[in-house]
Amino acid sequence: MKDKKAEPFYSPYVISGDMMYISGQLPIKDGVLKAVEGGIRQQAKQVLKNMYNLLKEEGLTKKNVVMCKAYITDIKYWEDFNEVYAEFFGDHKPARVVIPISPLSFGCNIELEAIAEIK
Amino acid sequence: MKDKKAEPFYSPYVISGDMMYISGQLPIKDGVLKAVEGGIRQQAKQVLKNMYNLLKEEGLTKKNVVMCKAYITDIKYWEDFNEVYAEFFGDHKPARVVIPISPLSFGCNIELEAIAEIK
Amino acid sequence: MKDKKAEPFYSPYVISGDMMYISGQLPIKDGVLKAVEGGIRQQAKQVLKNMYNLLKEEGLTKKNVVMCKAYITDIKYWEDFNEVYAEFFGDHKPARVVIPISPLSFGCNIELEAIAEIK
Repeated sequence: MKDKKAEPFYSPYVISGDMMYISGQLPIKDGVLKAVEGGIRQQAKQVLKNMYNLLKEEGLTKKNVVMCKAYITDIKYWEDFNEVYAEFFGDHKPARVVIPISPLSFGCNIELEAIAEIK
Repeated sequence: MKDKKAEPFYSPYVISGDMMYISGQLPIKDGVLKAVEGGIRQQAKQVLKNMYNLLKEEGLTKKNVVMCKAYITDIKYWEDFNEVYAEFFGDHKPARVVIPISPLSFGCNIELEAIAEIK
Repeated sequence: MKDKKAEPFYSPYVISGDMMYISGQLPIKDGVLKAVEGGIRQQAKQVLKNMYNLLKEEGLTKKNVVMCKAYITDIKYWEDFNEVYAEFFGDHKPARVVIPISPLSFGCNIELEAIAEIK
């Protein structure tokens, strides 16, 4: 098991066997605990970017992503999220679950979890 | 990685190594974006059937299912869901998580996610 | 696949390949369907203890845990949960997702799901 201990309470990701388990990504950047400006579309872009940056640390790309789970605070965000998501992934289509949840902290309306394969 | 690209934005499932990651299944059928009639019991049957049909495409059965996650829009549905679930799986008992969530689209009250093993 | 059939409708955990998939743990003990007393901190301790007991059955420790998902019924519980969680895991830092959800049964305010590796 290879973990990355940048965060105080959890690893941004852990590698076990051929799989990379990526922690829940919030739409924040530069370590500031506040959702990025611009509504759900910008928030969706940010969580995908945060995931992408973690993949890059291991030399992976979005094509390594096997499954994504998007937790959104209202199902009304589905369409905007979906457009940003489709544009990000293009021809690569991981398995996916979209789950409407209760309010998040910091004005966040989306959280993204992912599993990628390493090979 | 082997994915199945019938859906526009995601794959119904992706196979990585020995595992089959199945996308969130809603209680809809024939491509109609509306929950099936009959309340939570019929909806539970439908999501299990949709999962089953994906397993079949890979020559698998319910006995290959390792873990199921059922997202329900009210914990009051637990008992009815559970009866349908127990009847479907019989002696095979995957690991399971039941998670109450916020409202889904299309009158759906349940979404089902699963991981199966291929061997 | 090796499952453990102590529960009527699901296995507390299932082992597939090198991975142990642990079912959603509620903050209950001794089979009593009622959340333990003492608020979110005691509840967090209990779900971690329940997970730990399942790991022990397979001769594993908390260091085998690859990913934890904590479902909490209000994001306001994050800080208390986090302190208990950090104390439990110490230097070992699994990937993690914290997901605010709708009300659970039995006065429970937290549910914990985990994946561990066996090696």
